Amino acid sequence: MKIIEIKDIEKQLGKEVKLRGWVRNYRKASSKLRFVIFRDGSGELQCVASKPDMGEEAFEKVKQLTVETSLEIIGVPQKHPKFEDKFEFHLKDVNIIGTADEYPIGKKEHGPDFLLSQRHLWLRSRRQNAVLKIRHTVYFAICEYLNNNGFYRFDSPILTPNASEGTTTLFEVPYFDLGSAFLSQSGQLYLEAGIMSLGRVYDFGPVFRAEKSKTRKHLTEFWMMDAEAAFVEHEENMQIQEELIRFIIRTVIRSNKVELEILERDIKQLKKADAPFTIMTHRQVIDMLKAKGVKIGYEDDFGAAEEEMITEDSQVPIFVDRWPKDIKSFYMKRDPKDPELVLGADLIAPEGFGEIIGGSQREDDHDILLGRITKEGYDIKDYQWFLDLRKYGSVPHSGFGIGLERLIQWMSGVRHIREVIPFPRMINRIYP
Amino acid sequence: MKIIEIKDIEKQLGKEVKLRGWVRNYRKASSKLRFVIFRDGSGELQCVASKPDMGEEAFEKVKQLTVETSLEIIGVPQKHPKFEDKFEFHLKDVNIIGTADEYPIGKKEHGPDFLLSQRHLWLRSRRQNAVLKIRHTVYFAICEYLNNNGFYRFDSPILTPNASEGTTTLFEVPYFDLGSAFLSQSGQLYLEAGIMSLGRVYDFGPVFRAEKSKTRKHLTEFWMMDAEAAFVEHEENMQIQEELIRFIIRTVIRSNKVELEILERDIKQLKKADAPFTIMTHRQVIDMLKAKGVKIGYEDDFGAAEEEMITEDSQVPIFVDRWPKDIKSFYMKRDPKDPELVLGADLIAPEGFGEIIGGSQREDDHDILLGRITKEGYDIKDYQWFLDLRKYGSVPHSGFGIGLERLIQWMSGVRHIREVIPFPRMINRIYP
Repeated sequence: MKIIEIKDIEKQLGKEVKLRGWVRNYRKASSKLRFVIFRDGSGELQCVASKPDMGEEAFEKVKQLTVETSLEIIGVPQKHPKFEDKFEFHLKDVNIIGTADEYPIGKKEHGPDFLLSQRHLWLRSRRQNAVLKIRHTVYFAICEYLNNNGFYRFDSPILTPNASEGTTTLFEVPYFDLGSAFLSQSGQLYLEAGIMSLGRVYDFGPVFRAEKSKTRKHLTEFWMMDAEAAFVEHEENMQIQEELIRFIIRTVIRSNKVELEILERDIKQLKKADAPFTIMTHRQVIDMLKAKGVKIGYEDDFGAAEEEMITEDSQVPIFVDRWPKDIKSFYMKRDPKDPELVLGADLIAPEGFGEIIGGSQREDDHDILLGRITKEGYDIKDYQWFLDLRKYGSVPHSGFGIGLERLIQWMSGVRHIREVIPFPRMINRIYP
Repeated sequence: MKIIEIKDIEKQLGKEVKLRGWVRNYRKASSKLRFVIFRDGSGELQCVASKPDMGEEAFEKVKQLTVETSLEIIGVPQKHPKFEDKFEFHLKDVNIIGTADEYPIGKKEHGPDFLLSQRHLWLRSRRQNAVLKIRHTVYFAICEYLNNNGFYRFDSPILTPNASEGTTTLFEVPYFDLGSAFLSQSGQLYLEAGIMSLGRVYDFGPVFRAEKSKTRKHLTEFWMMDAEAAFVEHEENMQIQEELIRFIIRTVIRSNKVELEILERDIKQLKKADAPFTIMTHRQVIDMLKAKGVKIGYEDDFGAAEEEMITEDSQVPIFVDRWPKDIKSFYMKRDPKDPELVLGADLIAPEGFGEIIGGSQREDDHDILLGRITKEGYDIKDYQWFLDLRKYGSVPHSGFGIGLERLIQWMSGVRHIREVIPFPRMINRIYP
């Protein structure tokens, strides 16, 4: 007998097949009729167990099934009598593989702390399964776009000797006789070495932020994609980002129909975002916020509340462009038309999902960069290699970083960041 | 004028175009003729600078070029007069972008310590560039095979509360009020939770080993792919591994012709490995080693020298199957035919490249696993979640882990592990 997965059921209609998976749920319709929702990695399937059809012995086994018991089901898939695209599985027999007594996650509402402590089981729920499938799609949509546009994967190190932007939010790791290493917050600086060999590169891995924020909104470990490209200047950098994000939107809509439905994601909103993005200068955005009554100055950064207001009237993401130099990183290139500004833009998602990309053209002049590093009070010795890149064949270059979890939140519509990564790490949680 | 990359040069033969990149090298042929090897991220190009053709002013600029200077070149690509597949670029003009004075890496032999301290520049060398391109191919060949075979990406955490196999080689990280976290050595245990939701999953990220080994062969940070699949038993697990490795071989040969040539990789040897793999039991391998004069017992693991001997007479990788339980991990399932052995196999590459995969079927019985954890002296509290996976719908399952750098070494033929990762981390090196 053929062993198949739920995703391939349509090809087997009317034939006797076997599937392996778990009981999502079950319902007693009468003393002779039961329904079992069966799931495997690929989907869910409604099974009908009829005592007259199955015989007493097999029906008795169905009566023993509990939520999350693992089993083989044997029977015949049919078209669902009522729903066009659905199928129904007429059970002939079941074989229990592993029982599950008193599965701790029930139908009732559980608090987030309880669910996080049961994360190894909570992952099985319909919503969590759907989010993880979307995560897979978003990850590879990013890679696909970049690979098709001349970028090479270039894995930056996690253990780093120094920090590009302060040390208060760094995890410190004792490192043999060399003192301490720090867990990377971004691979960007390393990528700038990579482009001088490979032209365009990106990394995509975990980064770490020891944020002492007590809120549950922050992950201490999350995934980041940093891309960097030689000979790309600020405007083209934004074009690449826009194309990439629009490609991701289309890929998710095409690949995750079922999952977006489970999550009740409003796909219309996503589709509307697949249109030319808006560019506003930081100054224009401040003016807009002032007009909305926000108390904010021209040298200020945005909090979550402001980010939400920036796109509240927009269906597409908005680039906030040309920031005041003092609130952005030392490595950003100054605007030749106004040296008080940098050639950097953050991309703010619509629907209140906040910043998803930060990017900029990088300073490529050795002496200007040296001056900035000195002014910031950093140790030049730590940045000597980074300065070398401007000493030997420097080129104009730009790059950007995407926070994977933020992007998945937007695509999936899931508001809690803890649900979009398999095992979230927070200030108060490293288990399981 | 069209700006192109070297990889697209064939489509532009005879047309005036512009390219941007760096000087790999140059040679003075006469007072009126110079050759410049130009490179960009996509390849290398021989340029011919002729004073009569270019004019005096442009030729003077060519004379100023030094190794690693960045520049624009303007001219006309032609077929190479001597070599079938090669091209020659007839320079009309050059524009220097960034000069490079006294580039520290020359033609002379440098020691590995010097090169590693210049890693940010060494990356530009022809060999290092080629290895990194092969790394890109290997990474995505693994993903492509798995994605096409029903596996979902499932990122395991790096910050973990406990260790599956001892703590002596773990990096410890102070973690807020929770004491310490440890940097992951493998995501396997977490993947076992993932399969109960998604069926088949894999992670692919950095792992860490605080090995106090003084040799320069070990990286403290390297990349690992762990795959895990529900309802897959030991034999099928090995089949998946064999198919995957053979797919990678074919993909690298197809995608990296130029790079394999630069590295002088013997492709014939690689092609021969794309044939059915050999399976030997651990006991058979010990007998073979004894017959070769090695002093080794039936309960022993292999060192690098033994691994080399195992495949020295084989053109294909060899699975060393069914190991004595005492030298393998607690989570491996016992062989039902001989409870002294586990259903686990390591895959040893030919040509002396050693172990590239470790895999096994996992113990799926709650009580047996509990007994093992107790016997190993581990704290049950740390493993409660892992035990839960056997309590709620346990299923037979198997998995395996690939060390990315080892595999790249084999594919590329590069003997030094420090050259197959962008920024290697070793006991004595975290800079740059």
